[in-house]
Amino acid sequence: MSEGFPGYKGKALQVLRKAGAEIGDLIRITKDAKTYEGILIPRSEYGDEKHVVIKMKSGYNIGINITLNTQIEKIGVGAKPTFTPPPLPKQKPELPKVAIISTGGTIASRVDYRTGGVRSALSASDLYSVVPELSEVATIDAQILFSLYSENITAKHWSETAKTVAKHIQKGAAGVVVPHGTDTMAYTSAALSFTLQNLPVPVIMVGSQRSADRPSSDAATNLIGAVRAAAWAPFAEVVLAMHETISDASIVFHRGTKVRKCHTSRRDTFQSVNTSPLARIENEKITMLVDDYCQRDSSRKLVLKPDFDEKVALVKFHLGLNPKILEWHIEEGYRGIVLEGTGLGHVSNYCFPAIRKAVKNDVVVAMTSQCIWGRLGMNVYDTGRDLLAMGVIPLEDMLPETALVKLMWVLGQTKDVEEVKKLLTANIAHEISPRTTPEEEE
Amino acid sequence: MSEGFPGYKGKALQVLRKAGAEIGDLIRITKDAKTYEGILIPRSEYGDEKHVVIKMKSGYNIGINITLNTQIEKIGVGAKPTFTPPPLPKQKPELPKVAIISTGGTIASRVDYRTGGVRSALSASDLYSVVPELSEVATIDAQILFSLYSENITAKHWSETAKTVAKHIQKGAAGVVVPHGTDTMAYTSAALSFTLQNLPVPVIMVGSQRSADRPSSDAATNLIGAVRAAAWAPFAEVVLAMHETISDASIVFHRGTKVRKCHTSRRDTFQSVNTSPLARIENEKITMLVDDYCQRDSSRKLVLKPDFDEKVALVKFHLGLNPKILEWHIEEGYRGIVLEGTGLGHVSNYCFPAIRKAVKNDVVVAMTSQCIWGRLGMNVYDTGRDLLAMGVIPLEDMLPETALVKLMWVLGQTKDVEEVKKLLTANIAHEISPRTTPEEEE
Repeated sequence: MSEGFPGYKGKALQVLRKAGAEIGDLIRITKDAKTYEGILIPRSEYGDEKHVVIKMKSGYNIGINITLNTQIEKIGVGAKPTFTPPPLPKQKPELPKVAIISTGGTIASRVDYRTGGVRSALSASDLYSVVPELSEVATIDAQILFSLYSENITAKHWSETAKTVAKHIQKGAAGVVVPHGTDTMAYTSAALSFTLQNLPVPVIMVGSQRSADRPSSDAATNLIGAVRAAAWAPFAEVVLAMHETISDASIVFHRGTKVRKCHTSRRDTFQSVNTSPLARIENEKITMLVDDYCQRDSSRKLVLKPDFDEKVALVKFHLGLNPKILEWHIEEGYRGIVLEGTGLGHVSNYCFPAIRKAVKNDVVVAMTSQCIWGRLGMNVYDTGRDLLAMGVIPLEDMLPETALVKLMWVLGQTKDVEEVKKLLTANIAHEISPRTTPEEEE
Repeated sequence: MSEGFPGYKGKALQVLRKAGAEIGDLIRITKDAKTYEGILIPRSEYGDEKHVVIKMKSGYNIGINITLNTQIEKIGVGAKPTFTPPPLPKQKPELPKVAIISTGGTIASRVDYRTGGVRSALSASDLYSVVPELSEVATIDAQILFSLYSENITAKHWSETAKTVAKHIQKGAAGVVVPHGTDTMAYTSAALSFTLQNLPVPVIMVGSQRSADRPSSDAATNLIGAVRAAAWAPFAEVVLAMHETISDASIVFHRGTKVRKCHTSRRDTFQSVNTSPLARIENEKITMLVDDYCQRDSSRKLVLKPDFDEKVALVKFHLGLNPKILEWHIEEGYRGIVLEGTGLGHVSNYCFPAIRKAVKNDVVVAMTSQCIWGRLGMNVYDTGRDLLAMGVIPLEDMLPETALVKLMWVLGQTKDVEEVKKLLTANIAHEISPRTTPEEEE
């Protein structure tokens, strides 16, 4: 790695040096009779040695694999790095105070391509300069907690985030917004749902699928929607704010435990599963979509339970799954396994001995379904009844990722297996939808 | 286990003996001040010792856990077992010949509750007696290959099924129908898609979400639709036939590699992912929904490639995944790992060393997305580019389960790693949808 070439090393660094091109310069890459022009942008510290990344005129980034027949030529000089902060817009102290606690992800990043600096946009001043509408909605107190790709989040980050949210609420914030990478935002929204109990005000997680420098970006609309809800929404729950459809017209707020990323690139990627979103914002107006929500009440006293146990695994069953994997978890001292079974909650009968062994060793084994939609029905077929008889805990219609996070959280509260089972099957943060047919099962 | 009580043992058998109740008898179970009445039905050999299962008037089965305060009383006597086959309806030899090869599952089972026998309904004569309409559609040649809960299917069953389908096609069947449990029907439909190449006639997998004895059963409509398509459809591909919506009005045919079970109990549980279903049947009329399909042509010569390698795992990444699991697979001699990453194809950077080690050990590591919908974009973020640089193979928009089956199949054809990569990324059975944006990535 080198000054002037943040993130570049090895072969990629070599060809850039040879071309005399630095971050921010306009370069032309020729490869296999194709030509790509764009501004050379920096890479993260984990960057490989093969790719050179440019931002093209369209706003898209493209990584080009450097091979023997790749030519790079510098065709324009970039501006020298400057970091003068933009002028701070006037805050309106009469507006509700909203804390923004950034953890990273596309929504929190703003690459300054002209200067080459990768910067988090989430200092209050940067925010206002990127999304000036915010100053009409709330008084912003912005903080960068982490700058992480969300696939690198761990339970420690969940705890840290929950504690920071709690601090801001205790200091009187009207609501808290948590920008986060979308890849694992639903894991974190579930984690905050269990750790932040008895909330007086809303906690709004928010992400974006396209970065702010792209024409189709959803970053600003999602952020404005999130801040508006944090400041004004009538509910006090942990939710996840994203586009409702591919249009910018409405943002929906999904309950933190019932939401899932369902598309790799669409802006309406997040879907509430087995339930309706909690609320919608359209034309600056917030509409509640369900009746049984927790109302905002600033006198309510927040209860913070930030502890997790990391010795929990989510194992997706598949045809041919080696049951030794389950035994491996027992040997490694795991305390919980969430199975993602088929259909109504099944796994192959050749997994039965390993599951019995896990239960005997006080490993809590819980079942969810890889169908994603619908509810378990472990009394319908023998396979399900046999698993219940072994002590497998059916988690109704809980999402597999929510179940993982919940079991980590429950084991962070108690190690008593009976107590764990009781907490795991109790409905703590709307993670289990009410049954429609109480007695009979499908 | 005991004569007269198939599947019952231990405590459950004891209370039934005490009540003098046998399979087929009407019994009343009283527990916790609730009363359940229904016909005692048999259980499979894997049944636990705790549950007694009755079929209630509504047609639903319910399993009741026998506790100390559970009373069972016999209130009616069942008919004695009789196994007289129903009269065979007249076959119409002028109709196309369709082979039905049953593997098990809800659609293939018909519990004769009055007699206590659990019987596969799929002898030709039983079929006609259950679904007499079939004799108007085709001449049926029915065979029971397996009677398995589909979660117990293995690659050996896939090979066996493919060989049997091939035999019937070579004998001149106009089409083949394969009834199968829905839980893993999409795995098997992918397996048949790769093993049965250059098909002259359609191969239609079919399942049902509700058994034939329930008022809401989808078994008959799905089966009639499947047989009609096998006999008359213009396409010659492996497809999966199920309800299009919750109404009985239409059946759709999903391509075998692009379909997924997306709801635990709904009859329209199967969805085509990132593509349209291939065809629809409505009012006995088959409509093609895509243009680029393989047309029926009885002169085409089927190519059978039935081999699979079982040393392949599907590992769903989750926050906190222990990278030692990947190393465990290397040590156990696995030859392939399909990762189900987040978003555009990511895993935590703490998994990188284990992935590098796998690739170095000639384990083929391929990437899919747990989003399910959408396409990978591993050139967009550094995480993706780093994984590509390590040698991880991006599988475009392939479903994780299809990717698992394909890698098992590819490794059944060749062990040469470069050849494996070539086959894995080639589009063999429509498992990869065409790109819409050729150059730029999201």
